[in-house]
Amino acid sequence: MTSTDFHVFDTTLRDGAQREGVSYSVADKLAVARLLDEIGVGYIEGGWPGALPKDTEFFSRARTELQLKHAQLVAFGSTRKAGVAVEDDLQVRALLDAETPVVCLVAKSDVRHVREALRTTLEENLAMVADTVAFLVGHGRRVFVDCEHFFDGYAADPGYGVRVLDAAFAAGAEVGVLCDTNGGMLPMGVGRVVADVRARTPGKLGIHCQDDTGCAVANTLAAVEAGVTHVQGTANGYGERAGNADTFVLVANLVTKMGIPAVPAECLPELQRVSHAIAELANIAPDDHQPYVGASAFAHKAGLHASAIKVSPGLYNHLDPTVVGNDMRILVTEMAGRASVELKGRELGVDLAGQADAIGRVVDQVKVLEADGWSFEAADASFELLLRSQLPEAPPPLFELESYRTSVEHWRNGVVVSEATVKVHVDGERIISTGEGNGPVNALDNALRQALVSRYPQLADVALADYKVRILGWKGGTSATTRVLIDTTDGAGEWTTVGVHANIVEASWHALVDALAYAVLRRPQP
Amino acid sequence: MTSTDFHVFDTTLRDGAQREGVSYSVADKLAVARLLDEIGVGYIEGGWPGALPKDTEFFSRARTELQLKHAQLVAFGSTRKAGVAVEDDLQVRALLDAETPVVCLVAKSDVRHVREALRTTLEENLAMVADTVAFLVGHGRRVFVDCEHFFDGYAADPGYGVRVLDAAFAAGAEVGVLCDTNGGMLPMGVGRVVADVRARTPGKLGIHCQDDTGCAVANTLAAVEAGVTHVQGTANGYGERAGNADTFVLVANLVTKMGIPAVPAECLPELQRVSHAIAELANIAPDDHQPYVGASAFAHKAGLHASAIKVSPGLYNHLDPTVVGNDMRILVTEMAGRASVELKGRELGVDLAGQADAIGRVVDQVKVLEADGWSFEAADASFELLLRSQLPEAPPPLFELESYRTSVEHWRNGVVVSEATVKVHVDGERIISTGEGNGPVNALDNALRQALVSRYPQLADVALADYKVRILGWKGGTSATTRVLIDTTDGAGEWTTVGVHANIVEASWHALVDALAYAVLRRPQP
Repeated sequence: MTSTDFHVFDTTLRDGAQREGVSYSVADKLAVARLLDEIGVGYIEGGWPGALPKDTEFFSRARTELQLKHAQLVAFGSTRKAGVAVEDDLQVRALLDAETPVVCLVAKSDVRHVREALRTTLEENLAMVADTVAFLVGHGRRVFVDCEHFFDGYAADPGYGVRVLDAAFAAGAEVGVLCDTNGGMLPMGVGRVVADVRARTPGKLGIHCQDDTGCAVANTLAAVEAGVTHVQGTANGYGERAGNADTFVLVANLVTKMGIPAVPAECLPELQRVSHAIAELANIAPDDHQPYVGASAFAHKAGLHASAIKVSPGLYNHLDPTVVGNDMRILVTEMAGRASVELKGRELGVDLAGQADAIGRVVDQVKVLEADGWSFEAADASFELLLRSQLPEAPPPLFELESYRTSVEHWRNGVVVSEATVKVHVDGERIISTGEGNGPVNALDNALRQALVSRYPQLADVALADYKVRILGWKGGTSATTRVLIDTTDGAGEWTTVGVHANIVEASWHALVDALAYAVLRRPQP
Repeated sequence: MTSTDFHVFDTTLRDGAQREGVSYSVADKLAVARLLDEIGVGYIEGGWPGALPKDTEFFSRARTELQLKHAQLVAFGSTRKAGVAVEDDLQVRALLDAETPVVCLVAKSDVRHVREALRTTLEENLAMVADTVAFLVGHGRRVFVDCEHFFDGYAADPGYGVRVLDAAFAAGAEVGVLCDTNGGMLPMGVGRVVADVRARTPGKLGIHCQDDTGCAVANTLAAVEAGVTHVQGTANGYGERAGNADTFVLVANLVTKMGIPAVPAECLPELQRVSHAIAELANIAPDDHQPYVGASAFAHKAGLHASAIKVSPGLYNHLDPTVVGNDMRILVTEMAGRASVELKGRELGVDLAGQADAIGRVVDQVKVLEADGWSFEAADASFELLLRSQLPEAPPPLFELESYRTSVEHWRNGVVVSEATVKVHVDGERIISTGEGNGPVNALDNALRQALVSRYPQLADVALADYKVRILGWKGGTSATTRVLIDTTDGAGEWTTVGVHANIVEASWHALVDALAYAVLRRPQP
């Protein structure tokens, strides 16, 4: 099988955009399409022109702004309305206006949906499919047909869905996609239905699965085993309700476990980067526990394992993580002991040979801090600072804090202002510095940086990249603890620091101070 | 098949505790065990006594503090050490001291792990299994054996894993559990291996799957199809790396899709509540997109669907959500139109009959606010306030804001203090009120509540239950927007409000004001 016989069809920008909380701008959609192209999918469904103004604009801008290397762009739409001539249907005309090489049409294939939702006859629905496919093919489009609610429809009336497929194929459709729209299937059932449908119709079949039973990926693979050669997914499984089959997990499974060249081999190491970049565009925190591409997908924490992993990493990973652009991480946690700290030190490039006492002190400190709610699992930079602080050549702190004050005022005229003042001692000099900002932490950051920048000019290039807040142990509003993670960048790299305190500002302060200290550690000379 | 023939074995408290970021107190573990019992699982693995002090204490306290209705408590441990008599092995003795009716032993079943990690002979490993099982059975324990790395071991040497199973069964073990420890399997492969192993050994088989291919649930179900009658899972799929098979999704699939009485029928509607309660104890935000039990699992947002859902909800859900204790939600989003707002109004009990103009104004306002980063999907209370504000009988605002000021100071002596002052007009009276708190928002909350409580005494019973912060659109630290969600409770119920602003304190203020306004809406009279 070659990769041209087998389609990976990504619908992040159409079906995936139904995910609760997701709202892409047109620029976001263009960026997502470019990223999906980098992992080598065959088709990118960009949206529904005519129905959604943003999608119409996307296809218009895509003509000049989107140069795809691997993928064909696809416009999604519906079959013509009942009782309307296809050439008079504005929604169908908008599909032509999108000027994509491929159109994916959604068609009803469940008798109950035809009757109760569409409120037309079974014969008219078949005519709607045939007319719309023929019209688009007549205008030079390749046409795929999504058979909505196919599996539920098969349970109600197994013959009708096949008639829809036959109508689509006869009119020139290239692929008939069996959609588990409500997502209630299990792999065994999908395999049985696909095998039966394959025996009844000669066309190329596809599969579209939702994750309502937690089996979207497995259902898709079961369909592939049963002969389907077109698979639909969305980036990170984004989609309505429980989401869709995850394109990245599908691709990784197809290539590394089933030997199907679903994407070009050189694209596989892009999976992790593209997954995280799309999460950022969708403004959804990446799922650390996502298979293959999650930050924790190849992370090990048990002390039990840590010592054995030093000997044979292959015994504890189902795959070499670099194949999908990921890497193995050792987590520092209360369950870990000296072996984990040593391994982590090695990963961070800190030489711990002959430092048995320092390792012991680090293990003890981590235990105490974690009991207070600190977590170094996502904050490698704070952990490295802690580790180095116990070594003989420990770097000195950047400054000594005397005090700080930060305030937010909402004025009578509706204006909101934030201001902060820090009093610090740098190399024996007392510095008082005031900064403004769009929030209390931003103001503190500005004030502190201004106090330090003459001594550490390299801090001028440093910027906060993300700020995350987690409330720990809030039980009835009594004694909550706040954990803040700050991502910082100096253009060349990014690092994460942590701070914990009952007061969100003080927690942020700790993370901020570590962020700047790590910037100086990375670039001792400006 | 009866539910006693089929085991659901939950290992949230042992294998699931390996999840990055999870750290249960002993009290948390007891609470989690009680919750798991409420969904009717057969076995609860509580931890590894002897290896982890917290787990030793858990089993000790469980003897007096844990009354289970459905489940048997299980202690987890390892086979005896190589070259040590079983009765001299302290870790094995700790298993007896845990005084559980059942012990689950982990045994090596992959020749490479026996040689490279355990560093012993294949024969000694078999003796370790046989000796430890026989010793525990001799002391009146029922014994299950987890065959670690079984599937990878089967690929390397298919016969050795079966010899481990045979040794365990011959010594009196009740169940031999095939573990996909590294999680690299797909359902087809699991089914083939299980079928082969069943043909070679007569004992009762179990399955333990990790989610590294995104197929943990499907792999487990494939094993069940192939004859396994003991399934292991963890609450919400918590576990190392990509996690484990999710007990709740497994149970829902087994009962509702496969007709296997895996838990007593009356327990099924507890799934959602127990899932969310354990997430709270684990201090992990519930996954809204979790199948069956997630807040979005039965949520619909597409305008396309919303109008059809009014007619026939059954056509758009794979299951009646109340079966698993969930419900259907209609989401208010930019993709939704008037039909969604009407449906949502009906869900909230707001009569919108004859309010076409008001509905139009709400749709317009939602569009504008969502473009600024507001999201009402998780904030029903803020949406209801917005909806009611457009109706003729709109409730008046609780107060008019003149100004507020809040500050955080870190003093020279290390003390951190927060203070806030609000100036508001309540029923024409100007009130100035100052409050302290453990953070700037808590101080504002205290100050505002103090200003309002004489006019609205019912606010005295209201407490913040959770506070979530999301940074939106932070691209290089320039113009970020902050979205705050506040959960509030009055003892009888809980509601969520939202606020959005570039300044985190002002965003919190909006959510706070809505939280108090909704409290008064719920209980107009104190």
